[in-house]
Amino acid sequence: MAASFALLDDLRTLLGADALLTEGPDLEKYEKGWRYGQGRALAVVRPGTTAEVSKVMAFCHAHGVKVVAQGANTGLVGASNPDASGAMLVLSLERLNKRLEVDATDRTALVDGGVLLSQLNAALEADGLFYPIDLGADPSIGGMVVTNTGGTRLLKYGDVRRNLLGVELVLADGTVVNALNRLRKNNTGLDLGALMAGTFGSLAVVTGAVVQVVPRPKQQAVAMVAAQDGEAVLALLRALESQLGDVLSAFEVISANAFSPVFTHHPSLRNPYGNAAPAAFTALVELSSTLPAEALALGDLLEGSLGAFLESDAGEGILDVFMGKAEDLWAIRHHVSESLRHEGKVLAFDLSVPRSRMAAFREEVARFLAAEYPFIRPCDFGHWGDGGTHLNLVWKESEAAKSTVELIAELQPRIYALCVEGFIGSYSAEHGVGPHNQASYDRFTPEPVKALARALKAHLDPKGILGTVKLG
Amino acid sequence: MAASFALLDDLRTLLGADALLTEGPDLEKYEKGWRYGQGRALAVVRPGTTAEVSKVMAFCHAHGVKVVAQGANTGLVGASNPDASGAMLVLSLERLNKRLEVDATDRTALVDGGVLLSQLNAALEADGLFYPIDLGADPSIGGMVVTNTGGTRLLKYGDVRRNLLGVELVLADGTVVNALNRLRKNNTGLDLGALMAGTFGSLAVVTGAVVQVVPRPKQQAVAMVAAQDGEAVLALLRALESQLGDVLSAFEVISANAFSPVFTHHPSLRNPYGNAAPAAFTALVELSSTLPAEALALGDLLEGSLGAFLESDAGEGILDVFMGKAEDLWAIRHHVSESLRHEGKVLAFDLSVPRSRMAAFREEVARFLAAEYPFIRPCDFGHWGDGGTHLNLVWKESEAAKSTVELIAELQPRIYALCVEGFIGSYSAEHGVGPHNQASYDRFTPEPVKALARALKAHLDPKGILGTVKLG
Repeated sequence: MAASFALLDDLRTLLGADALLTEGPDLEKYEKGWRYGQGRALAVVRPGTTAEVSKVMAFCHAHGVKVVAQGANTGLVGASNPDASGAMLVLSLERLNKRLEVDATDRTALVDGGVLLSQLNAALEADGLFYPIDLGADPSIGGMVVTNTGGTRLLKYGDVRRNLLGVELVLADGTVVNALNRLRKNNTGLDLGALMAGTFGSLAVVTGAVVQVVPRPKQQAVAMVAAQDGEAVLALLRALESQLGDVLSAFEVISANAFSPVFTHHPSLRNPYGNAAPAAFTALVELSSTLPAEALALGDLLEGSLGAFLESDAGEGILDVFMGKAEDLWAIRHHVSESLRHEGKVLAFDLSVPRSRMAAFREEVARFLAAEYPFIRPCDFGHWGDGGTHLNLVWKESEAAKSTVELIAELQPRIYALCVEGFIGSYSAEHGVGPHNQASYDRFTPEPVKALARALKAHLDPKGILGTVKLG
Repeated sequence: MAASFALLDDLRTLLGADALLTEGPDLEKYEKGWRYGQGRALAVVRPGTTAEVSKVMAFCHAHGVKVVAQGANTGLVGASNPDASGAMLVLSLERLNKRLEVDATDRTALVDGGVLLSQLNAALEADGLFYPIDLGADPSIGGMVVTNTGGTRLLKYGDVRRNLLGVELVLADGTVVNALNRLRKNNTGLDLGALMAGTFGSLAVVTGAVVQVVPRPKQQAVAMVAAQDGEAVLALLRALESQLGDVLSAFEVISANAFSPVFTHHPSLRNPYGNAAPAAFTALVELSSTLPAEALALGDLLEGSLGAFLESDAGEGILDVFMGKAEDLWAIRHHVSESLRHEGKVLAFDLSVPRSRMAAFREEVARFLAAEYPFIRPCDFGHWGDGGTHLNLVWKESEAAKSTVELIAELQPRIYALCVEGFIGSYSAEHGVGPHNQASYDRFTPEPVKALARALKAHLDPKGILGTVKLG
């Protein structure tokens, strides 16, 4: 511990006392993750500039101090929290938020890694622009890059990687790499942003980024569509994309098991089915457009397109269409996750499969649960438009044939294997990899990809001081 | 040479005599590049499957034979042609074109690396889909991946990297890496496609790819807009994106110097200016939409938007608007490059700068040419919508104060430095890196990026047998 004290004194000298937090109560919010992740930090250091991040990393590299970088600590897999050893330094980016330069003609923004999504969007508003990664949380941009955040409008705009033009990195030894490219077309070798996106803080600290931003839509239209089965949902998706592809901005689907609990626990929300049972699947369709309503009547277009599809042969599995206010219909979607937690024990998965196999995958899960675990309800909902599904398994512990611990131990590997190996899907569609799902990474990642990650790690962080995830 | 004969015999045995070309006349079309690149091949080997590519690479790795992979040989920087040594084997992918699997619900296609862009689009047509990388040439998909091809509709759809979901690679030692991800949301570590895009065949052979495809537009509208200066063009771009962002699919700009020669050399094309001189800049604006004309009158929208902008304060630099048939207006754009070659000596650059600096960059080039090289005309045109410009310097050798060799030696480094260092631009916006511009890569690439490329090369191709470009 004497050695630790000396280290912390040195860090204090390096950045000023104010930058370092060492007292237990001050550390708690950095130690505990949003959903998973709970460790103990050696201390929290909060540099305010890239040069200070570089100083911290050079110091830690020289002294072999392990470091976990942390943005707004909103990740869902525990990747930004220290481990239990008490020996990891948390490198918080919360003060690294000075640069926020918008170039409206360029449609780009250059930001420090600690700038929050909300701050970026606020700065873009005056120019009628926004950063199109749509999330419930308010992460930092640096955190979004290393997590390669997905979200609800990925269908239209793509993920973080696809909207990233450049990055500034600090390597484990303190080297600053300026790759703050602002160009959409710059075909001159490695794209460091594309490489770093989705490496979960294990290869470098992202201290800055240049992101592409887009014109803010001027109008939206939202509807819910009742479908008798998953194949009907996929037929609807295909028809809508073919005709409304330019303006289709979300295509979410809620299964009946996930739909009903919303109204049990939030009776003030308006149920489009009234007192009737919901359809097997309810799709939430959102159109949005930069075009003014005089040029394109988005609500009429949506209603007309859905009506025509309902009447067509391809739409025979469609039961009903509900037009509604965007906020009312989205409120249903946004209350699903929380409502399920009132229903009993929830085992949550963040999965994806090819869109064309979504219905089959979902059926296979329901089939084996009914046969082997009749007391468990599959309550799935999610982003069918981009192949993502949040599969929640819900049961009452009082009705379960086995303990929760046993059930989780049985079901997690089985669902993951079914998804990845049976349906060429992903065990982590959008939340990324952290200590929470490192075991799945180890199991499902092809060996040559791991070997490549090891080579990158050996080059970028030869002492292995950075991050909580082992990609190699 | 005896050693070479033995090697070729071994390769013949490995793949069958038919797969190997060794006679001079058969080799020529593989040895010479589309624009640059002219070498001598040891032989050309044409594997028909990934397993055969693996055999070839394992063999070459064992015997230290250098290999350059080649798709359709349509690249513009010589990256797919052998060097002058006569010791490099050309690995042609022209027979690796069997897999072409379209999943219309998924909106993805899985293809062999040798499948041509035209073949892919033909296979997609029945489902109303297309691969949105729009080019004059007909490259192979594997070649497009390693080149990270750009094109004319990048503004709307992005580059190859942004439309790539997965890849299959054969490493230098023959290892096959199956990363044929079909998911839009799969956040589980390194994205091998994103890493390989734009590495110009120096890290691995791309034998297969999964690409995202998009709904084919149902209508288009095109106009030309006359602008008095570059700032007026940028104001137009900004206004159009803000309002028509969802449907703006191309924004090309032709300077007066590049515009006039089209009609000198192609008098049958219709000049929107009639007999008058063209404006300083003519923008070609294209809208395209999946929406049917009943829902959105695209031509009326474009005409109305341009008319309103022309009347507005922001549009004071706009001189005129010409509505026209898409094919007529595009024909002008497509004849620029070839028309300039009739005007004299052409020194061509494939540059980009941040869009907001395009006008200033273009002015600075014109200024120094007028002052120091009054006999040279800057004839620039290109994709202002994504910051790309094909700057062509044109002069008559009879009027030049210096020899062509001297002029190229002076102007190339000066323009590159002005673009990259003066305007944070790129010396290769969309053509990539090859022997033609290796010197610029060496000069302008930050050392940590080169070091990273060296580490990747050492891991993936430890004997350094692959490719013609040195990224490290």
